[in-house]
Amino acid sequence: MSDMPKTNPSQPRKASDVAQWDRETDIAIVGFGGAGGCAAIEAADAGSSVTIFELASASGGSTAMSSAEIYMGGSGGTRVQQACGFADNTEDMFNYMMMCAGPQADAEKIRDYCENSRDHFQWLLDIGVPFKDSFHEERAIMCLTDDGLLYTGSEKAYPFAQQAKPCPRGHNLYVEGDNGGPLFMKIVTDNVAQRDAITVEYETRALTLIVDEQDRVMGLVIRQNQQEFNVRAHQGVILCAGGFVMNEDMLAKYAPMLSAGTEPIGNPGDTGTGILMGMSVGGAAINMHEGFISLPYYPPASMTKGIVINDKGQRFINEDVYHGRLGAFALRQLSDRIYFIVTVEQYGDYERVSYLGAQVAGTGETVEELEQELGLRQGTLQQTLRVYNEDCERGQDSICHKAAEWLEPLEPPLVALDITPGRGAFVPYFTLGGLDTLPSGEVVDPNRRIIPGLYAAGRTACGVVRRAEGYSSGMSVGDATYSGRRAGKQAAAAPRN
Amino acid sequence: MSDMPKTNPSQPRKASDVAQWDRETDIAIVGFGGAGGCAAIEAADAGSSVTIFELASASGGSTAMSSAEIYMGGSGGTRVQQACGFADNTEDMFNYMMMCAGPQADAEKIRDYCENSRDHFQWLLDIGVPFKDSFHEERAIMCLTDDGLLYTGSEKAYPFAQQAKPCPRGHNLYVEGDNGGPLFMKIVTDNVAQRDAITVEYETRALTLIVDEQDRVMGLVIRQNQQEFNVRAHQGVILCAGGFVMNEDMLAKYAPMLSAGTEPIGNPGDTGTGILMGMSVGGAAINMHEGFISLPYYPPASMTKGIVINDKGQRFINEDVYHGRLGAFALRQLSDRIYFIVTVEQYGDYERVSYLGAQVAGTGETVEELEQELGLRQGTLQQTLRVYNEDCERGQDSICHKAAEWLEPLEPPLVALDITPGRGAFVPYFTLGGLDTLPSGEVVDPNRRIIPGLYAAGRTACGVVRRAEGYSSGMSVGDATYSGRRAGKQAAAAPRN
Repeated sequence: MSDMPKTNPSQPRKASDVAQWDRETDIAIVGFGGAGGCAAIEAADAGSSVTIFELASASGGSTAMSSAEIYMGGSGGTRVQQACGFADNTEDMFNYMMMCAGPQADAEKIRDYCENSRDHFQWLLDIGVPFKDSFHEERAIMCLTDDGLLYTGSEKAYPFAQQAKPCPRGHNLYVEGDNGGPLFMKIVTDNVAQRDAITVEYETRALTLIVDEQDRVMGLVIRQNQQEFNVRAHQGVILCAGGFVMNEDMLAKYAPMLSAGTEPIGNPGDTGTGILMGMSVGGAAINMHEGFISLPYYPPASMTKGIVINDKGQRFINEDVYHGRLGAFALRQLSDRIYFIVTVEQYGDYERVSYLGAQVAGTGETVEELEQELGLRQGTLQQTLRVYNEDCERGQDSICHKAAEWLEPLEPPLVALDITPGRGAFVPYFTLGGLDTLPSGEVVDPNRRIIPGLYAAGRTACGVVRRAEGYSSGMSVGDATYSGRRAGKQAAAAPRN
Repeated sequence: MSDMPKTNPSQPRKASDVAQWDRETDIAIVGFGGAGGCAAIEAADAGSSVTIFELASASGGSTAMSSAEIYMGGSGGTRVQQACGFADNTEDMFNYMMMCAGPQADAEKIRDYCENSRDHFQWLLDIGVPFKDSFHEERAIMCLTDDGLLYTGSEKAYPFAQQAKPCPRGHNLYVEGDNGGPLFMKIVTDNVAQRDAITVEYETRALTLIVDEQDRVMGLVIRQNQQEFNVRAHQGVILCAGGFVMNEDMLAKYAPMLSAGTEPIGNPGDTGTGILMGMSVGGAAINMHEGFISLPYYPPASMTKGIVINDKGQRFINEDVYHGRLGAFALRQLSDRIYFIVTVEQYGDYERVSYLGAQVAGTGETVEELEQELGLRQGTLQQTLRVYNEDCERGQDSICHKAAEWLEPLEPPLVALDITPGRGAFVPYFTLGGLDTLPSGEVVDPNRRIIPGLYAAGRTACGVVRRAEGYSSGMSVGDATYSGRRAGKQAAAAPRN
């Protein structure tokens, strides 16, 4: 990387090499996105002085670029859930999130997240985040109305619904359009500004950590206007510097599967420096191969009534899952092509509102004609549609278990969209690996021993969400804001040294 | 882990804390398996003094437990390949190995491996490893005869054969039965014993690395008979301590997918200490999530004529691939069950010689009966078999592209074996992640800068083989022995400090 500074995040500076401390603070926070902002607020409210160092000239991070849906629930339901008639159960939320994370799950962290999620909602209300007590019925990736609640994952879909009672947990800010992110970060930034204990230094690059002889983190080196400064952090450093989706070298090395994506999602500062800094002092980076990668095929919701097939003419996924899950399983197929088969009416909806960008691969007045046009083995798509349409008639998808509400026979003429990654469709991606932390935000080494003085939150840490196939919208901002708060509180409770 | 020593591999000792050096050597090698042994021989032959520290009371490592097939070829073919009529091309070998490693491929390392593979064969001859100039025709996981050459991967299978001309590259030692590993390590151990420059210390645990103020690796701390000793290595330390398949904590954190396996493959010392030592001084651990995981369904080779289906009654993989590739794709199915469908005759072969351990899930005098017995959706298996048998008649598998030599119609009565991981079948696994190294064996940090004085080889490094879906037998011992030699030569060329 051409702009890599000479002082490198992968090599800490020794405190004995520090000639003087240029800044002093209780807690130094790297990055002013959702995680860093919430960490600062909590730490200041607990009595610590805080300095946030932000690379950009303004706050925001990737949270401001997102829709800022926030995944919350449990404990009987948030105010919005309850008002909309959903008495969310903590165990259902826990079971759902455990299934989402699969074998990579950090049960302790997910447990902590779920048990404190309703309180987190209350804390967000307290700092002024507005939520309307209304439910958005339509299946959507992001809520373009000001409704406060919607389903944002695979809660109602197989196999999740069979093992955890579905409940909507995506909380959407009280604002029209896709404007939740900017509003959310404005509220967080205002809260930071109101607190005298917090200083923010913009256009500041965090270069590397400073450690003492016992490898305790003492502070960090920053650069402003070509000059380096040593910052002493008496209670600790909290790394909230995002993920590494903008670092091509790290992607190639750690998450090569994401190379199937077309559009990295994140801010330009997501270059992994926070993760590298943590690794440089012994922090374990885990789940580094995983990322969110998706085929965002809805809206329109009516696409859910179509079917997805591989080059064998086979279905392989219930099409009512979250789009990231469909994308993840599409990538796993040993198949040259993946197609979305829809009716002409559904294709009309697609053309009007979709931003997927998939091109038409074939059309057919009959299934046989479409099968031929796609070059599928004769009889395969015909068999798949025969079974599917029969299953629709009796309201039970025996092959992929799509929920009955989406089952409508697909009658020709039919249209096939080519959704093969790499053939035109929009495939967004971002990283889901990072520093291993305790639920408290304390960074741990490969043996899970705490690195004294070091905390991480948001995408710099490896949080509750760990796989594309188990992602739900709102889990990133939910995790960033909650883990930021936990790290802020934990650091503020540490003795000053 | 209960037996974790107090001096921990994840924290290096500072040279300034070393009161005295108890041992001096040019090169210290951790681990006396295939990698460590070959590293020692090369280093000694280049004029360095070498000390090998081995945890066990004898040499061997996981290489001695393996069949010791060695994956070699290119440059027109090894002596054995040529004698058997195979003029192997380096580019074909390179293309095949690149496809095997997929997006995780280290092209530079694979290039180096392939270009020097025939020379590696010659080196093995020179130290006394015997190979017979004979070709083993039958499809096998390991060669139970003394034949010198066999196909050990997916070379002849789709999609590999279409992009790289197939050639057998599995070299089997000149010994009857599955006895290649012990013989190979006996030869290596004899070679080590013949070299005065090499000292071996058994029953010795490597505890942690020792670094100077510039983080250069100076040596390591060992423990013998409850006592710690500081070892000064003037040219460097080579970590050849195996992978981490025996460390449950590391598996859960780094390679949770392997939890689907039933049998860890490796020696008891494969606890990841070499990898942790490397990480403790800034070495990057990469590909940590990946492992070999397999459903070893052949022998008998006749199983290849059966078909594998999921709970949708669909085929998803050409059954003539390497067993690890079939296992990898089986694990990726969104399916409650995976079945192997065979004829009664093939089942007879299976019962006689298989060690897969899969139980019979159903039988049928007709396909319909088997379909019902397995609880598959009516018509699905019938359609799959109709298409498959038609394809067999015309000698072309239009669905999964199994090679023509394996295509024989499956006529009832039929037997279904339940090969779902976790339901009785033997599922061996081991890790394929480790320290990132240059082809020279030098360990690098996350920015690919060399860690001075540190080398890694074998499973402690992340080598040429990176995925179950692209594994071929012989790639592990091939990689261990070749990368060990490279590291030994590189360290021996370093200035003494």
